[in-house]
Amino acid sequence: MNIGIIGLGLMGGSLAKAVKRYGISKKVYGFTNSEKNKKEIEELGLVDELVDLETLKKVSDVIILSIPVDAIISMFPNFLDIDEKTTIIDMGSTKEYIVKNIPTKIRKNFVAAHPMTGTERNGPKAAMDNLYEGKTVVLCDLEDNANFHVNKAFKIFQEMGMRIVVMNSHEHDVNACYISHLPHLISFSLANTVMSHQNPKEIIALAAGGFKDMSRIAKSSPRMWGDIFKQNRENMLLSIKYFEDQMNEAKKMIEDERYEELEDWMKRANSLHEIL
Amino acid sequence: MNIGIIGLGLMGGSLAKAVKRYGISKKVYGFTNSEKNKKEIEELGLVDELVDLETLKKVSDVIILSIPVDAIISMFPNFLDIDEKTTIIDMGSTKEYIVKNIPTKIRKNFVAAHPMTGTERNGPKAAMDNLYEGKTVVLCDLEDNANFHVNKAFKIFQEMGMRIVVMNSHEHDVNACYISHLPHLISFSLANTVMSHQNPKEIIALAAGGFKDMSRIAKSSPRMWGDIFKQNRENMLLSIKYFEDQMNEAKKMIEDERYEELEDWMKRANSLHEIL
Repeated sequence: MNIGIIGLGLMGGSLAKAVKRYGISKKVYGFTNSEKNKKEIEELGLVDELVDLETLKKVSDVIILSIPVDAIISMFPNFLDIDEKTTIIDMGSTKEYIVKNIPTKIRKNFVAAHPMTGTERNGPKAAMDNLYEGKTVVLCDLEDNANFHVNKAFKIFQEMGMRIVVMNSHEHDVNACYISHLPHLISFSLANTVMSHQNPKEIIALAAGGFKDMSRIAKSSPRMWGDIFKQNRENMLLSIKYFEDQMNEAKKMIEDERYEELEDWMKRANSLHEIL
Repeated sequence: MNIGIIGLGLMGGSLAKAVKRYGISKKVYGFTNSEKNKKEIEELGLVDELVDLETLKKVSDVIILSIPVDAIISMFPNFLDIDEKTTIIDMGSTKEYIVKNIPTKIRKNFVAAHPMTGTERNGPKAAMDNLYEGKTVVLCDLEDNANFHVNKAFKIFQEMGMRIVVMNSHEHDVNACYISHLPHLISFSLANTVMSHQNPKEIIALAAGGFKDMSRIAKSSPRMWGDIFKQNRENMLLSIKYFEDQMNEAKKMIEDERYEELEDWMKRANSLHEIL
């Protein structure tokens, strides 16, 4: 089969590397709107050929969308004339809003996926050799797909060495909110707390592993994350509330000097690592 | 010189390894109250000899306290009869409260230090070969020490390959709050947010790098961190307030669907990494 990848940044570029290395795709085609990225993709040799969108639609057995979640939605009209044998897979970080908006005509072709992997970097130069191996990919609402397309998606992700988890798109968005979207907002907030201080440089000069870990994902793309927070707005607002409740509980225990209760509260947090 | 280390967990155990490897100490003595730890320290061969406290005080040219910050304060009375040539160095994560409480009689001997390094693990088995190399150590309020003792502390940390930064204990506590203490409380809060959810296991099954980084330090010792939050209470309460302000600003922008402003707010967070 031939795979066409739309968007060749961290996710799409790494996917191009993986499907080539494992011989999953005979040829790998790419499409991007960005002139700057085109140059980088060619220099890095990420795909066999960069083509225009109409060509990519014709030559690809599977089209993979690795672009920001709002851009996925904007592209839907382009796929209305797709061949019924062509599989489309999106790799967006949100699923419910995307799935709800897939045009009926291509619903059977369109497999909603979210690979649980990434880094804080973006763009073609961020593409990595082993981004997907051993990681989890969530596939959603497969009952709305034709088996032919589901099987192709399974085959690709399995041959890349991924663990496949199936759930409905609503469950996905709740879980992804707690495991990824909320942590990103927290990391952005921590970075802004330090940057708003009168002496950020003096503080940051003392940064060790803990702070570096906690602030790493605050380097992520604002454009991409704005779209994710928008599409997962309701779950975000609820999860922020629960997180604020925890912070507030801790703050009150420190205020009231209830340190034994604070220790018990931290012990509960420790228990996360019995299952992680 | 001979070094005696009180407390041989992650920090003290790793220090024992470092001063032996670099030949800084002729002999390394250790003291611990914990029978469980005694056995592990001996099995791991962390020190040349475990001794009682009175022996350690007599045979050590430098005594290093690598125990929780409240335990440091409780030990002060034990050092009132120390020889005037004996240097004491504490490695606690808070400094102002400790420095204020050092008995006048031993104030000149007592060098307040905070090595900006660590992991979420604790106990003798957490001791590492290269915990200190290339890392920063903050020394505080050195004007209250005799030069003789300051010079010994400098020599030890420099020969371990550390970068020495000098500041007053109040500045240290403010900076350490933002760079370490607040991030720990945030990580505990995030872990508890997920653990309080109805399906923590289902959520955690999707954990990738971002969540693992953000929750790693939530594995830290509740006993140790309770003492730190207590001793740095005022700075903690203020930094929590500033962090809550940032979270709240982000929440309101999501609530009001002001996504362009949210993007600008994330761009500010990105700028942290221009100086980190």
